[in-house]
Amino acid sequence: MPVVHEEKLRVNWVDTDASGRIHYTAALRYFEIAEHGLMRRLMAGAAPPAGGEGFGLPRVHVEADYRLALRYPDEFTCSARVAHVGETSASYAYEIRNPAGELCIAGRIVVVSTDALGRKQALPGPLRTALEKGL
Amino acid sequence: MPVVHEEKLRVNWVDTDASGRIHYTAALRYFEIAEHGLMRRLMAGAAPPAGGEGFGLPRVHVEADYRLALRYPDEFTCSARVAHVGETSASYAYEIRNPAGELCIAGRIVVVSTDALGRKQALPGPLRTALEKGL
Amino acid sequence: MPVVHEEKLRVNWVDTDASGRIHYTAALRYFEIAEHGLMRRLMAGAAPPAGGEGFGLPRVHVEADYRLALRYPDEFTCSARVAHVGETSASYAYEIRNPAGELCIAGRIVVVSTDALGRKQALPGPLRTALEKGL
Amino acid sequence: MPVVHEEKLRVNWVDTDASGRIHYTAALRYFEIAEHGLMRRLMAGAAPPAGGEGFGLPRVHVEADYRLALRYPDEFTCSARVAHVGETSASYAYEIRNPAGELCIAGRIVVVSTDALGRKQALPGPLRTALEKGL
Repeated sequence: MPVVHEEKLRVNWVDTDASGRIHYTAALRYFEIAEHGLMRRLMAGAAPPAGGEGFGLPRVHVEADYRLALRYPDEFTCSARVAHVGETSASYAYEIRNPAGELCIAGRIVVVSTDALGRKQALPGPLRTALEKGL
Repeated sequence: MPVVHEEKLRVNWVDTDASGRIHYTAALRYFEIAEHGLMRRLMAGAAPPAGGEGFGLPRVHVEADYRLALRYPDEFTCSARVAHVGETSASYAYEIRNPAGELCIAGRIVVVSTDALGRKQALPGPLRTALEKGL
Repeated sequence: MPVVHEEKLRVNWVDTDASGRIHYTAALRYFEIAEHGLMRRLMAGAAPPAGGEGFGLPRVHVEADYRLALRYPDEFTCSARVAHVGETSASYAYEIRNPAGELCIAGRIVVVSTDALGRKQALPGPLRTALEKGL
Repeated sequence: MPVVHEEKLRVNWVDTDASGRIHYTAALRYFEIAEHGLMRRLMAGAAPPAGGEGFGLPRVHVEADYRLALRYPDEFTCSARVAHVGETSASYAYEIRNPAGELCIAGRIVVVSTDALGRKQALPGPLRTALEKGL
Protein backbone atom coordinates (compact mmCIF):
# COMPACT_ATOMS: atom_id res chain seq x y z
CA MET A 1 0.00 0.00 0.00
CA PRO A 2 1.70 3.20 -1.11
CA VAL A 3 1.88 6.05 1.37
CA VAL A 4 0.16 9.07 -0.17
CA HIS A 5 0.97 12.20 1.79
CA GLU A 6 -1.44 15.11 1.43
CA GLU A 7 -0.92 18.75 2.32
CA LYS A 8 -3.88 21.10 2.49
CA LEU A 9 -2.62 24.33 0.94
CA ARG A 10 -3.92 27.64 -0.32
CA VAL A 11 -2.84 29.74 -3.29
CA ASN A 12 -0.91 32.67 -1.89
CA TRP A 13 -1.03 36.07 -3.55
CA VAL A 14 2.67 35.84 -4.42
CA ASP A 15 1.98 32.64 -6.37
CA THR A 16 -0.15 34.48 -8.93
CA ASP A 17 0.95 36.35 -12.03
CA ALA A 18 -0.69 39.03 -14.15
CA SER A 19 -2.88 36.40 -15.88
CA GLY A 20 -4.79 36.12 -12.58
CA ARG A 21 -3.82 32.46 -12.27
CA ILE A 22 -0.85 30.93 -10.48
CA HIS A 23 2.49 31.17 -12.21
CA TYR A 24 3.45 27.74 -13.50
CA THR A 25 6.44 27.51 -11.17
CA ALA A 26 4.11 27.73 -8.13
CA ALA A 27 2.94 24.16 -8.78
CA LEU A 28 6.52 22.94 -8.44
CA ARG A 29 6.85 24.66 -5.08
CA TYR A 30 3.64 22.94 -3.95
CA PHE A 31 5.04 19.59 -5.12
CA GLU A 32 8.13 20.15 -3.00
CA ILE A 33 6.12 20.99 0.11
CA ALA A 34 4.14 17.74 -0.23
CA GLU A 35 7.29 15.73 -1.00
CA HIS A 36 9.05 17.03 2.09
CA GLY A 37 5.98 16.29 4.19
CA LEU A 38 5.99 12.75 2.78
CA MET A 39 9.68 12.28 3.55
CA ARG A 40 9.35 13.62 7.10
CA ARG A 41 6.64 11.03 7.59
CA LEU A 42 8.64 8.19 6.04
CA MET A 43 11.70 9.20 8.06
CA ALA A 44 9.74 9.47 11.29
CA GLY A 45 10.13 13.17 11.69
CA ALA A 46 13.72 13.57 10.56
CA ALA A 47 14.26 16.41 8.13
CA PRO A 48 14.20 15.15 4.55
CA PRO A 49 17.81 14.81 3.44
CA ALA A 50 18.32 17.65 1.04
CA GLY A 51 22.01 17.00 0.63
CA GLY A 52 24.90 19.21 1.57
CA GLU A 53 26.91 17.01 3.96
CA GLY A 54 28.72 14.52 1.81
CA PHE A 55 25.92 13.63 -0.52
CA GLY A 56 23.38 15.17 -2.84
CA LEU A 57 19.94 14.31 -4.11
CA PRO A 58 19.48 16.66 -7.06
CA ARG A 59 16.41 16.62 -9.24
CA VAL A 60 17.31 15.43 -12.74
CA HIS A 61 13.90 15.32 -14.37
CA VAL A 62 10.75 17.29 -13.71
CA GLU A 63 7.45 17.23 -15.53
CA ALA A 64 4.02 18.67 -14.86
CA ASP A 65 0.66 18.69 -16.62
CA TYR A 66 -1.70 21.58 -15.97
CA ARG A 67 -5.41 20.81 -16.47
CA LEU A 68 -7.41 23.27 -14.36
CA ALA A 69 -6.35 26.74 -13.34
CA LEU A 70 -5.75 27.73 -9.73
CA ARG A 71 -6.39 31.29 -8.59
CA TYR A 72 -5.90 33.25 -5.40
CA PRO A 73 -7.17 32.36 -2.76
CA ASP A 74 -8.14 28.84 -3.88
CA GLU A 75 -7.72 26.00 -1.44
CA PHE A 76 -6.40 22.69 -2.74
CA THR A 77 -4.63 19.53 -1.69
CA CYS A 78 -1.24 18.55 -3.00
CA SER A 79 -0.27 14.91 -2.61
CA ALA A 80 3.10 13.23 -3.06
CA ARG A 81 4.03 9.57 -3.14
CA VAL A 82 7.13 7.57 -3.98
CA ALA A 83 6.60 6.19 -7.49
CA HIS A 84 9.81 4.24 -8.02
CA VAL A 85 13.03 3.40 -6.14
CA GLY A 86 16.06 2.33 -8.19
CA GLU A 87 19.70 1.68 -7.39
CA THR A 88 20.86 5.30 -7.64
CA SER A 89 17.62 7.15 -8.32
CA ALA A 90 14.02 7.45 -7.19
CA SER A 91 10.92 9.20 -8.43
CA TYR A 92 7.93 10.89 -6.90
CA ALA A 93 4.41 11.43 -8.27
CA TYR A 94 2.29 14.45 -7.33
CA GLU A 95 -1.33 15.46 -7.69
CA ILE A 96 -2.96 18.80 -7.00
CA ARG A 97 -6.74 18.56 -6.60
CA ASN A 98 -9.38 21.18 -5.90
CA PRO A 99 -11.93 20.77 -3.08
CA ALA A 100 -14.29 19.02 -5.55
CA GLY A 101 -11.61 16.36 -6.00
CA GLU A 102 -10.83 17.28 -9.59
CA LEU A 103 -7.25 16.85 -10.76
CA CYS A 104 -5.80 20.29 -11.48
CA ILE A 105 -2.09 19.53 -11.90
CA ALA A 106 -0.15 16.25 -12.02
CA GLY A 107 3.61 15.91 -11.81
CA ARG A 108 6.57 13.58 -11.66
CA ILE A 109 10.09 14.24 -10.46
CA VAL A 110 13.19 12.03 -10.62
CA VAL A 111 16.05 12.50 -8.17
CA VAL A 112 19.49 10.87 -8.26
CA SER A 113 21.82 10.11 -5.42
CA THR A 114 25.29 11.65 -5.72
CA ASP A 115 28.42 11.86 -3.60
CA ALA A 116 29.94 15.13 -2.45
CA LEU A 117 31.57 15.57 -5.86
CA GLY A 118 28.32 15.10 -7.76
CA ARG A 119 29.07 11.57 -8.97
CA LYS A 120 26.20 9.08 -8.99
CA GLN A 121 26.22 6.68 -6.07
CA ALA A 122 23.82 4.17 -4.52
CA LEU A 123 21.06 5.73 -2.45
CA PRO A 124 22.21 6.02 1.19
CA GLY A 125 20.75 3.20 3.28
CA PRO A 126 18.41 5.15 5.60
CA LEU A 127 17.05 7.12 2.67
CA ARG A 128 16.44 3.96 0.62
CA THR A 129 14.67 2.36 3.58
CA ALA A 130 12.42 5.38 3.96
CA LEU A 131 11.65 5.58 0.25
CA GLU A 132 10.81 1.86 0.04
CA LYS A 133 8.47 2.20 3.00
CA GLY A 134 6.48 4.58 0.84
CA LEU A 135 6.04 2.27 -2.15
CA MET B 1 15.84 27.89 -40.43
CA PRO B 2 14.52 27.99 -36.87
CA VAL B 3 15.01 31.20 -34.92
CA VAL B 4 16.98 30.36 -31.79
CA HIS B 5 16.84 33.24 -29.35
CA GLU B 6 19.59 33.39 -26.72
CA GLU B 7 19.70 35.37 -23.50
CA LYS B 8 22.97 35.79 -21.65
CA LEU B 9 22.04 35.44 -17.99
CA ARG B 10 23.67 35.02 -14.62
CA VAL B 11 22.59 32.99 -11.61
CA ASN B 12 21.27 35.45 -9.06
CA TRP B 13 21.69 34.84 -5.35
CA VAL B 14 17.93 34.49 -4.91
CA ASP B 15 17.94 31.61 -7.41
CA THR B 16 20.03 29.42 -5.10
CA ASP B 17 18.88 27.20 -2.25
CA ALA B 18 20.66 25.74 0.75
CA SER B 19 22.25 23.03 -1.43
CA GLY B 20 24.43 25.78 -2.90
CA ARG B 21 23.01 25.13 -6.37
CA ILE B 22 20.05 26.82 -8.07
CA HIS B 23 16.61 25.72 -6.95
CA TYR B 24 15.03 23.65 -9.68
CA THR B 25 12.30 26.22 -10.31
CA ALA B 26 14.94 28.82 -11.27
CA ALA B 27 15.52 27.00 -14.57
CA LEU B 28 11.87 27.48 -15.46
CA ARG B 29 12.14 31.21 -14.83
CA TYR B 30 15.16 31.31 -17.14
CA PHE B 31 13.17 29.43 -19.80
CA GLU B 32 10.45 32.04 -19.59
CA ILE B 33 12.86 34.94 -19.97
CA ALA B 34 14.30 33.39 -23.14
CA GLU B 35 10.84 32.53 -24.46
CA HIS B 36 9.61 36.08 -24.00
CA GLY B 37 12.76 37.40 -25.67
CA LEU B 38 12.08 35.05 -28.57
CA MET B 39 8.47 36.18 -28.87
CA ARG B 40 9.36 39.88 -28.73
CA ARG B 41 11.71 39.21 -31.63
CA LEU B 42 9.17 37.21 -33.62
CA MET B 43 6.53 39.84 -32.96
CA ALA B 44 8.85 42.68 -33.91
CA GLY B 45 9.02 44.19 -30.49
CA ALA B 46 5.43 43.79 -29.39
CA ALA B 47 5.05 42.38 -25.91
CA PRO B 48 4.53 38.62 -26.02
CA PRO B 49 0.81 38.02 -25.60
CA ALA B 50 0.45 36.66 -22.13
CA GLY B 51 -3.29 36.55 -22.21
CA GLY B 52 -5.72 38.52 -20.13
CA GLU B 53 -7.76 40.42 -22.72
CA GLY B 54 -10.13 37.91 -24.22
CA PHE B 55 -7.76 35.05 -24.65
CA GLY B 56 -5.28 32.96 -22.74
CA LEU B 57 -2.16 31.02 -23.52
CA PRO B 58 -1.67 28.83 -20.45
CA ARG B 59 1.13 26.32 -20.14
CA VAL B 60 -0.30 22.79 -20.10
CA HIS B 61 2.87 20.72 -20.07
CA VAL B 62 6.32 21.47 -18.73
CA GLU B 63 9.37 19.26 -18.58
CA ALA B 64 13.02 19.81 -17.79
CA ASP B 65 16.15 17.66 -17.57
CA TYR B 66 18.95 18.79 -15.31
CA ARG B 67 22.44 17.57 -16.27
CA LEU B 68 24.97 19.97 -14.79
CA ALA B 69 24.54 22.10 -11.71
CA LEU B 70 24.47 25.89 -11.82
CA ARG B 71 25.73 27.90 -8.89
CA TYR B 72 25.86 31.57 -7.95
CA PRO B 73 27.28 33.62 -9.73
CA ASP B 74 27.62 31.39 -12.83
CA GLU B 75 27.04 32.94 -16.22
CA PHE B 76 25.14 30.94 -18.80
CA THR B 77 23.05 31.27 -21.93
CA CYS B 78 19.42 30.23 -22.09
CA SER B 79 18.00 29.69 -25.57
CA ALA B 80 14.40 29.25 -26.64
CA ARG B 81 12.94 28.26 -29.99
CA VAL B 82 9.50 27.32 -31.30
CA ALA B 83 9.46 23.53 -31.59
CA HIS B 84 5.96 22.93 -32.93
CA VAL B 85 2.86 24.91 -33.95
CA GLY B 86 -0.48 23.11 -33.99
CA GLU B 87 -4.06 24.21 -34.49
CA THR B 88 -4.71 25.18 -30.85
CA SER B 89 -1.33 24.61 -29.24
CA ALA B 90 2.37 25.25 -29.68
CA SER B 91 5.54 24.12 -27.97
CA TYR B 92 8.90 25.65 -27.17
CA ALA B 93 12.29 24.01 -26.60
CA TYR B 94 14.90 25.47 -24.27
CA GLU B 95 18.58 24.90 -23.58
CA ILE B 96 20.74 26.27 -20.81
CA ARG B 97 24.46 26.04 -21.56
CA ASN B 98 27.51 27.07 -19.57
CA PRO B 99 30.27 29.25 -21.09
CA ALA B 100 32.06 26.06 -22.22
CA GLY B 101 29.00 25.25 -24.33
CA GLU B 102 27.98 22.24 -22.26
CA LEU B 103 24.28 21.54 -21.96
CA CYS B 104 23.26 22.07 -18.31
CA ILE B 105 19.47 21.97 -18.53
CA ALA B 106 17.07 21.20 -21.38
CA GLY B 107 13.34 21.84 -21.37
CA ARG B 108 10.13 21.73 -23.32
CA ILE B 109 6.87 23.57 -22.68
CA VAL B 110 3.50 23.21 -24.39
CA VAL B 111 1.00 26.09 -24.40
CA VAL B 112 -2.63 26.02 -25.55
CA SER B 113 -4.74 28.81 -26.90
CA THR B 114 -7.96 29.46 -25.00
CA ASP B 115 -10.78 31.96 -25.13
CA ALA B 116 -11.72 34.23 -22.24
CA LEU B 117 -13.61 31.37 -20.59
CA GLY B 118 -10.68 28.98 -20.78
CA ARG B 119 -12.05 26.89 -23.68
CA LYS B 120 -9.56 25.75 -26.32
CA GLN B 121 -9.64 27.83 -29.49
CA ALA B 122 -7.49 28.22 -32.59
CA LEU B 123 -4.31 30.24 -32.04
CA PRO B 124 -5.05 33.93 -32.75
CA GLY B 125 -3.76 34.87 -36.24
CA PRO B 126 -0.94 37.29 -35.33
CA LEU B 127 0.36 34.90 -32.71
CA ARG B 128 0.30 31.97 -35.13
CA THR B 129 2.12 34.04 -37.73
CA ALA B 130 4.82 34.95 -35.24
CA LEU B 131 5.22 31.38 -34.00
CA GLU B 132 5.48 29.98 -37.53
CA LYS B 133 8.14 32.55 -38.39
CA GLY B 134 10.22 30.92 -35.66
CA LEU B 135 10.00 27.36 -36.97
CA MET C 1 -8.13 44.88 21.91
CA PRO C 2 -6.18 44.46 18.67
CA VAL C 3 -6.79 41.30 16.69
CA VAL C 4 -3.46 39.53 16.29
CA HIS C 5 -3.69 36.83 13.65
CA GLU C 6 -1.11 34.05 13.80
CA GLU C 7 -0.14 31.55 11.13
CA LYS C 8 1.93 28.50 12.04
CA LEU C 9 4.36 28.12 9.17
CA ARG C 10 7.48 26.21 8.25
CA VAL C 11 10.52 27.28 6.25
CA ASN C 12 10.23 25.60 2.87
CA TRP C 13 13.32 24.49 0.98
CA VAL C 14 12.62 27.01 -1.77
CA ASP C 15 12.78 29.81 0.82
CA THR C 16 16.47 29.17 1.51
CA ASP C 17 19.50 30.45 -0.37
CA ALA C 18 23.10 29.29 -0.59
CA SER C 19 23.87 30.83 2.82
CA GLY C 20 21.78 28.03 4.35
CA ARG C 21 19.35 30.57 5.80
CA ILE C 22 16.14 31.92 4.30
CA HIS C 23 16.51 34.52 1.58
CA TYR C 24 15.47 37.89 2.95
CA THR C 25 12.48 38.12 0.63
CA ALA C 26 10.98 34.97 2.19
CA ALA C 27 10.08 36.94 5.32
CA LEU C 28 7.98 39.29 3.23
CA ARG C 29 6.07 36.36 1.75
CA TYR C 30 5.40 35.11 5.29
CA PHE C 31 4.16 38.58 6.27
CA GLU C 32 1.71 38.51 3.38
CA ILE C 33 0.34 35.09 4.31
CA ALA C 34 -0.35 36.28 7.86
CA GLU C 35 -1.83 39.57 6.64
CA HIS C 36 -4.22 37.80 4.30
CA GLY C 37 -5.22 35.41 7.07
CA LEU C 38 -5.90 38.43 9.28
CA MET C 39 -7.99 40.11 6.61
CA ARG C 40 -10.03 36.97 5.90
CA ARG C 41 -10.81 36.90 9.60
CA LEU C 42 -11.70 40.58 9.80
CA MET C 43 -13.82 40.28 6.67
CA ALA C 44 -15.58 37.16 7.93
CA GLY C 45 -14.14 34.85 5.31
CA ALA C 46 -14.26 37.12 2.29
CA ALA C 47 -11.08 37.14 0.27
CA PRO C 48 -8.87 40.07 1.24
CA PRO C 49 -9.42 42.76 -1.37
CA ALA C 50 -6.24 42.79 -3.39
CA GLY C 51 -7.50 45.29 -5.88
CA GLY C 52 -8.10 44.84 -9.55
CA GLU C 53 -11.77 45.75 -9.93
CA GLY C 54 -11.95 49.50 -9.76
CA PHE C 55 -9.62 50.03 -6.89
CA GLY C 56 -6.15 49.18 -5.70
CA LEU C 57 -4.39 48.75 -2.40
CA PRO C 58 -0.72 48.86 -3.31
CA ARG C 59 2.03 48.66 -0.72
CA VAL C 60 3.90 51.97 -0.56
CA HIS C 61 6.31 51.31 2.29
CA VAL C 62 7.85 48.10 3.55
CA GLU C 63 10.38 47.57 6.28
CA ALA C 64 11.76 44.55 8.09
CA ASP C 65 14.30 43.89 10.83
CA TYR C 66 16.05 40.55 10.92
CA ARG C 67 17.32 39.45 14.34
CA LEU C 68 17.59 35.65 14.33
CA ALA C 69 18.17 33.43 11.32
CA LEU C 70 15.60 30.94 10.08
CA ARG C 71 16.72 27.75 8.37
CA TYR C 72 15.01 24.86 6.63
CA PRO C 73 12.92 23.15 8.06
CA ASP C 74 12.34 25.50 11.02
CA GLU C 75 8.82 25.97 12.29
CA PHE C 76 7.74 29.44 13.33
CA THR C 77 4.70 31.63 13.79
CA CYS C 78 4.09 34.75 11.78
CA SER C 79 1.59 37.22 13.20
CA ALA C 80 -0.05 40.22 11.56
CA ARG C 81 -2.16 42.99 13.06
CA VAL C 82 -3.56 46.29 11.86
CA ALA C 83 -1.29 49.00 13.28
CA HIS C 84 -2.98 52.14 11.95
CA VAL C 85 -5.98 53.14 9.83
CA GLY C 86 -5.92 56.55 8.17
CA GLU C 87 -8.13 58.31 5.66
CA THR C 88 -6.49 56.85 2.54
CA SER C 89 -3.91 54.49 4.02
CA ALA C 90 -3.42 51.79 6.62
CA SER C 91 -0.49 49.91 8.07
CA TYR C 92 0.16 46.43 9.35
CA ALA C 93 2.73 45.16 11.87
CA TYR C 94 4.24 41.67 11.67
CA GLU C 95 6.26 39.42 13.93
CA ILE C 96 7.98 36.15 13.17
CA ARG C 97 8.82 34.15 16.29
CA ASN C 98 10.51 30.77 16.76
CA PRO C 99 8.91 28.03 18.91
CA ALA C 100 10.81 29.42 21.94
CA GLY C 101 8.89 32.66 21.46
CA GLU C 102 11.94 34.67 20.45
CA LEU C 103 11.42 37.47 17.94
CA CYS C 104 13.25 36.54 14.71
CA ILE C 105 11.93 39.14 12.28
CA ALA C 106 9.69 42.19 12.72
CA GLY C 107 8.07 44.16 9.96
CA ARG C 108 5.77 47.00 9.03
CA ILE C 109 3.95 47.65 5.77
CA VAL C 110 1.91 50.67 4.68
CA VAL C 111 -0.78 50.35 1.99
CA VAL C 112 -2.70 53.13 0.27
CA SER C 113 -6.13 53.06 -1.25
CA THR C 114 -6.29 54.06 -4.90
CA ASP C 115 -8.93 54.25 -7.60
CA ALA C 116 -8.71 52.34 -10.87
CA LEU C 117 -6.34 54.97 -12.26
CA GLY C 118 -3.96 54.75 -9.33
CA ARG C 119 -5.05 58.02 -7.70
CA LYS C 120 -5.31 58.09 -3.91
CA GLN C 121 -8.85 57.79 -2.62
CA ALA C 122 -10.55 57.15 0.73
CA LEU C 123 -10.45 53.53 1.88
CA PRO C 124 -13.58 51.74 0.60
CA GLY C 125 -16.19 51.44 3.38
CA PRO C 126 -16.20 47.65 3.92
CA LEU C 127 -12.42 47.56 3.95
CA ARG C 128 -12.20 50.40 6.46
CA THR C 129 -14.75 48.69 8.67
CA ALA C 130 -12.76 45.47 8.61
CA LEU C 131 -9.46 47.22 9.29
CA GLU C 132 -10.90 49.20 12.20
CA LYS C 133 -12.28 46.00 13.72
CA GLY C 134 -8.67 44.85 13.96
CA LEU C 135 -7.32 47.86 15.86
CA MET D 1 32.63 60.44 -5.60
CA PRO D 2 30.32 57.56 -4.80
CA VAL D 3 30.25 54.67 -7.25
CA VAL D 4 26.67 54.26 -8.45
CA HIS D 5 26.24 50.96 -10.22
CA GLU D 6 23.30 50.67 -12.61
CA GLU D 7 21.72 47.55 -14.06
CA LYS D 8 19.33 47.82 -16.99
CA LEU D 9 16.59 45.34 -16.22
CA ARG D 10 13.15 44.37 -17.43
CA VAL D 11 10.10 43.23 -15.46
CA ASN D 12 9.78 39.49 -16.03
CA TRP D 13 6.39 37.84 -16.19
CA VAL D 14 7.13 35.87 -13.02
CA ASP D 15 7.66 39.16 -11.15
CA THR D 16 4.01 40.15 -11.59
CA ASP D 17 1.02 39.18 -9.47
CA ALA D 18 -2.70 39.16 -10.12
CA SER D 19 -2.90 42.94 -9.63
CA GLY D 20 -1.08 43.26 -12.97
CA ARG D 21 1.83 45.04 -11.27
CA ILE D 22 5.04 43.56 -9.87
CA HIS D 23 4.76 41.80 -6.55
CA TYR D 24 6.42 43.92 -3.90
CA THR D 25 9.14 41.35 -3.27
CA ALA D 26 10.32 41.69 -6.89
CA ALA D 27 11.82 45.10 -6.09
CA LEU D 28 14.02 43.50 -3.45
CA ARG D 29 15.31 40.98 -5.96
CA TYR D 30 16.16 43.85 -8.30
CA PHE D 31 18.00 45.61 -5.47
CA GLU D 32 20.08 42.50 -4.91
CA ILE D 33 21.03 42.20 -8.57
CA ALA D 34 22.26 45.80 -8.60
CA GLU D 35 24.06 45.38 -5.27
CA HIS D 36 25.91 42.31 -6.49
CA GLY D 37 26.83 44.10 -9.71
CA LEU D 38 28.17 46.97 -7.60
CA MET D 39 30.21 44.63 -5.42
CA ARG D 40 31.68 42.76 -8.39
CA ARG D 41 32.82 46.12 -9.68
CA LEU D 42 34.25 47.24 -6.35
CA MET D 43 35.96 43.87 -5.89
CA ALA D 44 37.37 43.89 -9.42
CA GLY D 45 35.33 40.98 -10.65
CA ALA D 46 35.49 38.74 -7.59
CA ALA D 47 32.14 37.28 -6.61
CA PRO D 48 30.50 39.37 -3.92
CA PRO D 49 31.12 37.62 -0.60
CA ALA D 50 27.78 36.17 0.34
CA GLY D 51 29.10 34.35 3.34
CA GLY D 52 29.24 30.66 3.97
CA GLU D 53 32.94 30.03 4.56
CA GLY D 54 33.70 31.28 8.03
CA PHE D 55 31.78 34.50 7.92
CA GLY D 56 28.38 35.89 7.14
CA LEU D 57 26.97 39.15 5.90
CA PRO D 58 23.27 38.85 6.68
CA ARG D 59 20.80 41.62 6.00
CA VAL D 60 19.47 43.02 9.25
CA HIS D 61 17.30 45.87 8.01
CA VAL D 62 15.46 46.34 4.77
CA GLU D 63 13.17 49.15 3.68
CA ALA D 64 11.58 50.17 0.43
CA ASP D 65 9.27 52.94 -0.75
CA TYR D 66 7.07 52.31 -3.77
CA ARG D 67 6.04 55.41 -5.73
CA LEU D 68 5.23 54.34 -9.28
CA ALA D 69 3.99 50.92 -10.39
CA LEU D 70 6.05 48.66 -12.64
CA ARG D 71 4.29 46.27 -15.02
CA TYR D 72 5.37 43.53 -17.39
CA PRO D 73 7.35 44.07 -19.67
CA ASP D 74 8.55 47.48 -18.42
CA GLU D 75 12.22 48.32 -18.73
CA PHE D 76 13.88 50.16 -15.89
CA THR D 77 17.25 50.78 -14.28
CA CYS D 78 18.09 49.69 -10.77
CA SER D 79 21.05 51.40 -9.15
CA ALA D 80 22.92 50.50 -5.99
CA ARG D 81 25.56 52.40 -4.06
CA VAL D 82 27.29 52.04 -0.72
CA ALA D 83 25.61 54.50 1.65
CA HIS D 84 27.58 53.91 4.84
CA VAL D 85 30.45 51.75 6.13
CA GLY D 86 30.71 51.17 9.87
CA GLU D 87 32.88 48.99 12.07
CA THR D 88 30.72 45.87 11.81
CA SER D 89 28.00 46.95 9.40
CA ALA D 90 27.40 48.69 6.10
CA SER D 91 24.40 49.94 4.20
CA TYR D 92 23.38 50.24 0.58
CA ALA D 93 20.95 52.61 -1.12
CA TYR D 94 18.94 51.63 -4.19
CA GLU D 95 16.86 53.42 -6.80
CA ILE D 96 14.62 51.99 -9.47
CA ARG D 97 13.83 54.47 -12.24
CA ASN D 98 11.74 54.20 -15.38
CA PRO D 99 13.12 55.18 -18.81
CA ALA D 100 11.78 58.72 -18.22
CA GLY D 101 14.10 58.93 -15.22
CA GLU D 102 11.28 59.02 -12.68
CA LEU D 103 11.93 57.37 -9.33
CA CYS D 104 9.65 54.33 -9.03
CA ILE D 105 11.07 52.59 -5.96
CA ALA D 106 13.76 53.57 -3.45
CA GLY D 107 15.35 51.30 -0.90
CA ARG D 108 17.93 50.91 1.81
CA ILE D 109 19.46 47.76 3.24
CA VAL D 110 21.79 47.31 6.21
CA VAL D 111 24.10 44.28 6.45
CA VAL D 112 26.22 43.18 9.41
CA SER D 113 29.41 41.22 9.43
CA THR D 114 29.31 38.02 11.49
CA ASP D 115 31.65 35.14 12.20
CA ALA D 116 30.81 31.52 11.41
CA LEU D 117 28.69 31.32 14.57
CA GLY D 118 26.65 34.39 13.70
CA ARG D 119 28.36 36.72 16.19
CA LYS D 120 29.03 40.28 15.09
CA GLN D 121 32.63 40.90 14.03
CA ALA D 122 34.55 43.64 12.23
CA LEU D 123 34.06 43.69 8.46
CA PRO D 124 36.74 41.51 6.83
CA GLY D 125 39.54 43.68 5.40
CA PRO D 126 39.07 43.09 1.65
CA LEU D 127 35.35 43.63 1.96
CA ARG D 128 35.81 46.86 3.91
CA THR D 129 38.30 48.09 1.34
CA ALA D 130 35.87 47.39 -1.48
CA LEU D 131 32.96 49.02 0.33
CA GLU D 132 34.97 52.15 1.14
CA LYS D 133 36.02 52.46 -2.48
CA GLY D 134 32.32 52.85 -3.26
CA LEU D 135 31.64 55.71 -0.85
